[in-house]
Amino acid sequence: MIKVGIVGGTGYTGIELLRILAGHPAVRLTAITSRGEAGTKVSDMFPSLRRRVDLKFVTPEDAALASCDVVFFATPNGIAMKQAAALVADGVRVIDLAADFRLRDVAEWEKWYGMTHAAPELVAEAVYGLPEINREQIRKARVLANPGCYPTAVQLGFWPLIEAGIVERGHLIADAKSGVSGAGRKAEVSMLYSEVTDSFKAYGVAGHRHLPEIRQGLSRMADGAEIGLTFVPHLTPMVRGIHATLYARLTRDIDGKGLQDLFESRFAGETFVDVMPAGSHPETRSVRASNMCRMAVHRPQGGDTVVVLSVIDNLVKGAAGQAVQNMNIMFGEEESLGLGGVPVSP
Amino acid sequence: MIKVGIVGGTGYTGIELLRILAGHPAVRLTAITSRGEAGTKVSDMFPSLRRRVDLKFVTPEDAALASCDVVFFATPNGIAMKQAAALVADGVRVIDLAADFRLRDVAEWEKWYGMTHAAPELVAEAVYGLPEINREQIRKARVLANPGCYPTAVQLGFWPLIEAGIVERGHLIADAKSGVSGAGRKAEVSMLYSEVTDSFKAYGVAGHRHLPEIRQGLSRMADGAEIGLTFVPHLTPMVRGIHATLYARLTRDIDGKGLQDLFESRFAGETFVDVMPAGSHPETRSVRASNMCRMAVHRPQGGDTVVVLSVIDNLVKGAAGQAVQNMNIMFGEEESLGLGGVPVSP
Amino acid sequence: MIKVGIVGGTGYTGIELLRILAGHPAVRLTAITSRGEAGTKVSDMFPSLRRRVDLKFVTPEDAALASCDVVFFATPNGIAMKQAAALVADGVRVIDLAADFRLRDVAEWEKWYGMTHAAPELVAEAVYGLPEINREQIRKARVLANPGCYPTAVQLGFWPLIEAGIVERGHLIADAKSGVSGAGRKAEVSMLYSEVTDSFKAYGVAGHRHLPEIRQGLSRMADGAEIGLTFVPHLTPMVRGIHATLYARLTRDIDGKGLQDLFESRFAGETFVDVMPAGSHPETRSVRASNMCRMAVHRPQGGDTVVVLSVIDNLVKGAAGQAVQNMNIMFGEEESLGLGGVPVSP
Amino acid sequence: MIKVGIVGGTGYTGIELLRILAGHPAVRLTAITSRGEAGTKVSDMFPSLRRRVDLKFVTPEDAALASCDVVFFATPNGIAMKQAAALVADGVRVIDLAADFRLRDVAEWEKWYGMTHAAPELVAEAVYGLPEINREQIRKARVLANPGCYPTAVQLGFWPLIEAGIVERGHLIADAKSGVSGAGRKAEVSMLYSEVTDSFKAYGVAGHRHLPEIRQGLSRMADGAEIGLTFVPHLTPMVRGIHATLYARLTRDIDGKGLQDLFESRFAGETFVDVMPAGSHPETRSVRASNMCRMAVHRPQGGDTVVVLSVIDNLVKGAAGQAVQNMNIMFGEEESLGLGGVPVSP
Repeated sequence: MIKVGIVGGTGYTGIELLRILAGHPAVRLTAITSRGEAGTKVSDMFPSLRRRVDLKFVTPEDAALASCDVVFFATPNGIAMKQAAALVADGVRVIDLAADFRLRDVAEWEKWYGMTHAAPELVAEAVYGLPEINREQIRKARVLANPGCYPTAVQLGFWPLIEAGIVERGHLIADAKSGVSGAGRKAEVSMLYSEVTDSFKAYGVAGHRHLPEIRQGLSRMADGAEIGLTFVPHLTPMVRGIHATLYARLTRDIDGKGLQDLFESRFAGETFVDVMPAGSHPETRSVRASNMCRMAVHRPQGGDTVVVLSVIDNLVKGAAGQAVQNMNIMFGEEESLGLGGVPVSP
Repeated sequence: MIKVGIVGGTGYTGIELLRILAGHPAVRLTAITSRGEAGTKVSDMFPSLRRRVDLKFVTPEDAALASCDVVFFATPNGIAMKQAAALVADGVRVIDLAADFRLRDVAEWEKWYGMTHAAPELVAEAVYGLPEINREQIRKARVLANPGCYPTAVQLGFWPLIEAGIVERGHLIADAKSGVSGAGRKAEVSMLYSEVTDSFKAYGVAGHRHLPEIRQGLSRMADGAEIGLTFVPHLTPMVRGIHATLYARLTRDIDGKGLQDLFESRFAGETFVDVMPAGSHPETRSVRASNMCRMAVHRPQGGDTVVVLSVIDNLVKGAAGQAVQNMNIMFGEEESLGLGGVPVSP
Repeated sequence: MIKVGIVGGTGYTGIELLRILAGHPAVRLTAITSRGEAGTKVSDMFPSLRRRVDLKFVTPEDAALASCDVVFFATPNGIAMKQAAALVADGVRVIDLAADFRLRDVAEWEKWYGMTHAAPELVAEAVYGLPEINREQIRKARVLANPGCYPTAVQLGFWPLIEAGIVERGHLIADAKSGVSGAGRKAEVSMLYSEVTDSFKAYGVAGHRHLPEIRQGLSRMADGAEIGLTFVPHLTPMVRGIHATLYARLTRDIDGKGLQDLFESRFAGETFVDVMPAGSHPETRSVRASNMCRMAVHRPQGGDTVVVLSVIDNLVKGAAGQAVQNMNIMFGEEESLGLGGVPVSP
Repeated sequence: MIKVGIVGGTGYTGIELLRILAGHPAVRLTAITSRGEAGTKVSDMFPSLRRRVDLKFVTPEDAALASCDVVFFATPNGIAMKQAAALVADGVRVIDLAADFRLRDVAEWEKWYGMTHAAPELVAEAVYGLPEINREQIRKARVLANPGCYPTAVQLGFWPLIEAGIVERGHLIADAKSGVSGAGRKAEVSMLYSEVTDSFKAYGVAGHRHLPEIRQGLSRMADGAEIGLTFVPHLTPMVRGIHATLYARLTRDIDGKGLQDLFESRFAGETFVDVMPAGSHPETRSVRASNMCRMAVHRPQGGDTVVVLSVIDNLVKGAAGQAVQNMNIMFGEEESLGLGGVPVSP
């Protein structure tokens, strides 16, 4: 059994991690920390976990995290970077669901996240946990940077095109739509039901923190070539789900069949990427509460613009599920262990 | 392995049954019928089942249902009653998720459902599948009448009070609220998104088909005494969930602690009924996509009116999940087998 | 023109008041105060008011409220009671949309609201602003207590029955469902979109502040007789709307036609109460963004329980619209002036 | 008073037209036709119109449309083209809210709409009713083609850029998101609440009927030059609202200030187009139930891609409201008459 600790389990990523780990056959949940909620039963805060999770929140001091095999950080940005080094020194592997170890370039990280990085040396060794792209390095990772939600949907969707070198890399567009749970479980007027429901808006058009993360990932796929990306995130009135609509201009003639083959062969054998038949329009609900990424590739009107539709559940493949997928890889378990839940639809 | 056939799998009960059975370790899905969709892959109609359910819909003629161990009817009312006898004769056990076998009184059934019953003899032997109340008879049932969604939430909530004989049986009130999936997957203007969302209404105040079913169940609990019940169903803009608010007038003095003890002892040991602590308000999302019924009992202001709050997921404990719970009992499996999914929240 | 000031316009009641008053032909909006937002343009906070409301928020000190004809308090409870006396002394009429002047019994108010009342002498003269019941007193009111949202829907629905003396007054039940805007525009985790959507729950079963307000109103209708009321409010995933389902036991035999006549004659001539035909089920969306209360009366199965369905928009007839209706009466304008918007549906 | 007839008022465009016209001071609603609902009171079908619209649906034969000043067609495509000629011959002006007269190229229309055009001669004289662009021709129009919802939001947003000639016209991208009411009030499984809510999807990527309409409009702005447009519509779980996110590559250097000035001066004086301050993100709810189009222009990261955000209420500025705006222009009324409702938010 893998002994698991969770730091900061009171947000949506935290409860989703608990939901998944509570049904994971190779995991023993050992401790979950929350300074603010220490002493509270997890299931008093989240009644959906009654009879399934018997832990109480404890302070970090009482958590005995050093005796865990792996610790998940489901914390705001800037927490894991302060605690990871000590855990790693104790032989504990760290999976950070926040952004602390996602950008290789510490200066850029500090610019986008507005703080000084506390552990630049760990940034260098941290592994970016997008398993479909990075599986081998993940196996041995001591510090794993779990990707952001938008970056997961966008990178997987652009990957076949970039790798094949058949699109203009300087003018990519990612028009992405997210459910509200992506904003986290924080008391903010702008995320109240009455503010968000029955409305739609873009946000962060001037610059969103996931932009450099996506750009870094796409650049790696292009062997380090520079990437021009316009990334516009939107808020859509639903709880879970990201729908990324990706636009790229073809530099080489390839017909619809060719594009379909490219995508299917790129993801052949992947448990958690489902390339749908030509002409499909994946719905976010088709992956709700599951770790699947579904996508479809189009070339509308036979023009030179290729359109990729890529959907995930932001809390699962975009956060907690991918973190468990990474844990499975790190500990030599079957990659899909504990991630077999069928999507909940309707 | 239990060989399972499904008749009529294109509605919400059908897809939910597929979702649950696809993950059930003791089940082999053998056939699913739909005259209208014969030849279509199930996962083409329901992309959430891609890679999880590999069947095609077949005509009833091609389904070889006679070789199944059990056949679920996820059909409109009036279908199972025509096919059950032949299956039973072949030694196949039948679980009807519609209403054909729910009312013992055939004349009353015919009045409420507006058709002649095709198999009155089977009505007599059919077992009403509310496991918490009726577990022993379920074990041997050849024809099982799976309860309606409202009746499940309402009967479980009233049970301790009626059985203890501490409320006026002649003036019970069940004010129940249902998510929209309860109306099924039929092309009707009144269930369009734009008709239903951001609005709330009662319906069927003059008389709803679940009224006689509930009345029959409550009467059994009262050893056949007559029941006076006002039942008002409402439509609430959400997909899954029933919230029953039950009102009864106490005929005996019993304090809050006494009521709490009564409910807790009544459901002690039940896997799928969770009596919450005194003062609780169960939310439907706390049982979303799970087979749990959560309830709380209140005596507001110390008055003589007791209020019970009872929530279920109408597609699971109110339909497909309870049907699988019944199947487990009928086939000697552990009652919770395949029903272990943690509620999906948020 | 009526010179209008608004104290505290940053909540949902405030913006709704602005929406209505911006189109009111006899009103000149003079000042709107908010200590926290002083200097901010109202339309920067609420872009829906761009080009329609040109005011900035000002501090109470800068607001020159004493020169207004009427001041609306769209503030939390406990504010108006501190400022009303000075305004009244200056000849300004006060309409409080909060609860400060709703309960005649100051001791009971202090118990339910948990503070000492700052102006008990004004409570005595304050007029309860339910126009259909209290129109004459409203005309001359200097301090008007605008009713709560639940109390509006519940009192109007019970009124014909209580006044006619044909129901048991000791055992009334009001099962009420509210949209989320009723909880206000406050940063609270429990009102986040992801907490509230696609779920349903009761709350405050042990006791809600609107209970004594309703009880007081019903008692007045019964010439001071005591009222027994069980009031259970619920939160439903929509923005606007209250649906009250009311249950009472008949003490006299009266058929459906008689009940229908009773309700129709009671509200004959009322602009803002619409008794629907027998057998109707009013939907909250049928009154969305309008000042209408629609209701229907049922006697299910010919039993002795009468069921009234009463719907309003909680922000309009349950708050800002009714406040404007009251203002119209107080200033001798036509009661419906500025309240003519057709409900927005879908 | 303008005597108005409506053909086909049972859909969402029809009820919205009724909502607006019921409050229009210069209009007399004379007749509304529906073959299927002839004899039904309009307010029985749409209770939100009780006490506001007193008409019954009549058959076209009984409607005396020839005596109207103007007839609105709120019908499916292919109806207006059959009836317009006779009405025009009788001196009645026709406003078609469907697509029959939107495309100048009859052959292209027939390809996209899959039928033979019944009145090609009227296509030639029909005026495309986007008032901001086409106001002068509208005044004298006998047959007015009211624009589609997507085309309204997209054309207004691209207009300043195309007219100024500062973007690549061959590679425009319109990523548009629509509320569900755009799909109409038809009994279709795919538009059921449980199918649509809490999910997001693209549709019609291969080709949507609004594509040629938009392309035609943009081409006119560019003095007939060819336009390359990728148009991807999406369905978002809300009732009203379109959010168009528009991408174009700049061919000339222009900074954010320059873009802002371009947009502001382009729409200076327009009642129904609101260019928001630089850096804004318009929300669809800020225009809900109003005839406003709000937009913002961005140049993210100082790159060469300009992003325009343009929002409307699809039923108002995208349909019924714009139709009334056009009627006002055609009959010499003030353009905003009857369209003064403040947006409903929240």
